[in-house]
Parts: sequence; structure tokens; C-alpha cells
Amino acid sequence: MHGKFITLEGVEGSGKSTQLQLVKNYLQDLGYQVIMTYEPGDTEVGNKIRQILLDPKYDKLVPKAELMLYLADRAQHVQEVIIPNLKDGKIVISDRYIDATWAYQGFARELDSSVVKKLNSIATDNLTPDLTLLLDLDPAVSLQRAKETTAKTNEAGDRIEAEKIEFHQQVRKGYLELAEQEERIAVVDGNKAKKEVFGQIKQILKERSIVCPE
Amino acid sequence: MHGKFITLEGVEGSGKSTQLQLVKNYLQDLGYQVIMTYEPGDTEVGNKIRQILLDPKYDKLVPKAELMLYLADRAQHVQEVIIPNLKDGKIVISDRYIDATWAYQGFARELDSSVVKKLNSIATDNLTPDLTLLLDLDPAVSLQRAKETTAKTNEAGDRIEAEKIEFHQQVRKGYLELAEQEERIAVVDGNKAKKEVFGQIKQILKERSIVCPE
Repeated sequence: MHGKFITLEGVEGSGKSTQLQLVKNYLQDLGYQVIMTYEPGDTEVGNKIRQILLDPKYDKLVPKAELMLYLADRAQHVQEVIIPNLKDGKIVISDRYIDATWAYQGFARELDSSVVKKLNSIATDNLTPDLTLLLDLDPAVSLQRAKETTAKTNEAGDRIEAEKIEFHQQVRKGYLELAEQEERIAVVDGNKAKKEVFGQIKQILKERSIVCPE
Repeated sequence: MHGKFITLEGVEGSGKSTQLQLVKNYLQDLGYQVIMTYEPGDTEVGNKIRQILLDPKYDKLVPKAELMLYLADRAQHVQEVIIPNLKDGKIVISDRYIDATWAYQGFARELDSSVVKKLNSIATDNLTPDLTLLLDLDPAVSLQRAKETTAKTNEAGDRIEAEKIEFHQQVRKGYLELAEQEERIAVVDGNKAKKEVFGQIKQILKERSIVCPE
């Protein structure tokens, strides 16, 4: 596999979608072939799984079942989308991947973190990103953003957004703890303006040799 | 938990549903409170998962995603149905449980069997049946039965039934191998007439102290 695999992580409303689009355009302008993808839901099977994961009507979903559904989506995503595109030499950028499960299901839902790591590696056959960009932001700020987006698009807030602020604070803490353990995770200050956030990301893409220095 | 947990296993068309009903009536006549349940699908979340697992339209489903979906269904089933009823002192009889995943996804789909065992124990918090009845039958015979049922009920054959005979032979082999390893699994000769099969089961229920001797 001669492509590169980049993942974006962060709490709800941390600006992942905006930055993902900027990164994609930037890399394409540099001449790379780029595939943007996301979890959960970016396969036919995964889309059906996503409906269960996000629909507030499934409020009885227990933490371990939720965990296994994310892993099912991920296993399908890796085999059907990520690996074939990496084999084609493309840059694959995924909105969320293994670290989201660690932060949300492992850390914030208090499932055993080492078990979550092990399950992630089983589901993905150990496919680890070349680089993970963690958009770090206080959930008190980011959730407000997420709510504004939801209001604009007239969508119902999903099952995860509906969690209490303390849950999202735990997720942030989980992400930051993981970033200390894993060298591949680069923390980006998500409090800055869109352009400045993107400036940090471009710098990281160069430092980590995803793109060649100018 | 002072109830008893019994599971029924076997290849497609091995007569599980018929025997399940007979066992239920028998135990109720003896005065026990009995709950009949099944996997996959016997919760609201599980029913949605079942649609993915059995619908032939999801033929791209990769083995590991399939495995994780069965585990998600199981985790939900254990917490929402099995444990509460066992706590109430009932006899819970489930049509399929952990051994099905071992035989179908582990043995027949050739995923690592020790990994499947480990995942089962994570998904269920180690909840093991008190007794497992394995209805053993040659798939050449049982699949014919399953097809006749499908034809009668006008249902489309599902994604699992559509597998080749060799797949079902492997499942049978997997079940029998597991029965040699696990003392809780009692093998029942499913080739006999319905009444004789049930006679064997009644005998086992007494020997294994699920019911008191007459």
C-alpha cells in the first residue's frame, strides 16, 4: 500500500468537516489523488449501522453493543474503502477512526481502554493512520457550534450530541490523553479562526512528510 | 442470578424451533417460568442489526464486520433480555448464542477461533449458558428442511441459507469440535423423529439438573 492514511478527530463541532474540505482541496491542488471518507456510515452496510448509532430512538443501546457496532462499521470501512484506495496510491482522509472509539466508548463510557485498543486492532487488521489530526477545543464552545449547524440544517440533534456536556468533556480528555501516548497524533488548536487552524494543519502535513516541503 | 440459561444450537433446519417450543411447554407444565428468545434480533436494536445480517442485498458484508454485528446484537440481548430474566429466576432458552458465532464466523469463515472466544466473552461479560443443546444433523438433510419451510412461508431464503453446502458442513464440524471441548454442550441426534429428539432432550434436562428427577 503506497498511499497515505490521515484521520481527523475531535469532539462534536470541533470543525472537522470544514478542515477536511480545506485539506482535501490543498492536497488536490498539490497534485495528489484524495479520497474523503468518514465513520460511521460511509459504506452501504455502514450507513445502515449509522442509523442505529445516531437515532435517538435507540436510547436503550448498551455501551458494549454501541462499541461493537462502531467496530462493525470500521471493519467494513477498512476493507471496502480504505485499503483499496491506499493500494491505489491515494491519500485517504477519514473523518473519525480508531481514536474516536477509544475516546468515546473507551474513555468517556468507561469501557476498558486496553480492550478497546485490542478490539480496534482486530477490526482493522492493525491498520494505523500515518497521521491523525486532533482538533482540540473546549466542548462548551464546540457544542454551541454543532447546535447552530443542526438548527441551520433543520436536522434533529443526534444521540451523541444529546449527551451531557460532562460526557463531551470526558471525550476531550480521552483524546488528549491518547495524543500523549501516540506519536502519530498531532494536536491542533481548534480555538483559532478557520484559516489559522488550517495554517497549523498545513505545517503538520509538511513536518510529518505527508506532503513534500516547498 | 438464580434462573437457568439454556441455549439451542445447530445448523439451519436442524429442528431448533420445533424443539424449542416443545421444551418450553414441557418446562412450563413442570411449573417453571420460561422465556424463549433468539439471536440475532430479539431486541429493538437487534432487530435492526438482524436486517443487515440476513438481507442478501448486503452481500459485500466482510467477515469481521459480520462478526462484530453478531456481537453487538449479543451484547444488547444479554443486557436487555437475558440477564434481567435470569435475575427474575426464570429459565431463559435462547435459539443460538455464543457457540453459533464460534461455529459460523470462527470455524466456517476461518476467523481466528481464539479471537472469537475472547470477543464472545467481552460482549457477554462472560455469561455462559448452564446447558447448550446441540442438535446435530447432516446439513444435506437439514438444508432441505430449511428450504421446504422457506417455500411454505413464501420467505426469501436468507444470506446464510444461501451459502454453499460446504459452508454448512464446516459449521457442523465446528459445532462438534466445540462440543468436545466444552462440557456444558450436550449433543442431540437430530436425525431421529421429532418425538425421539425431544425424548433425548428431556433426558439431558434431568441429567444436567435443569429439572428435578421425577
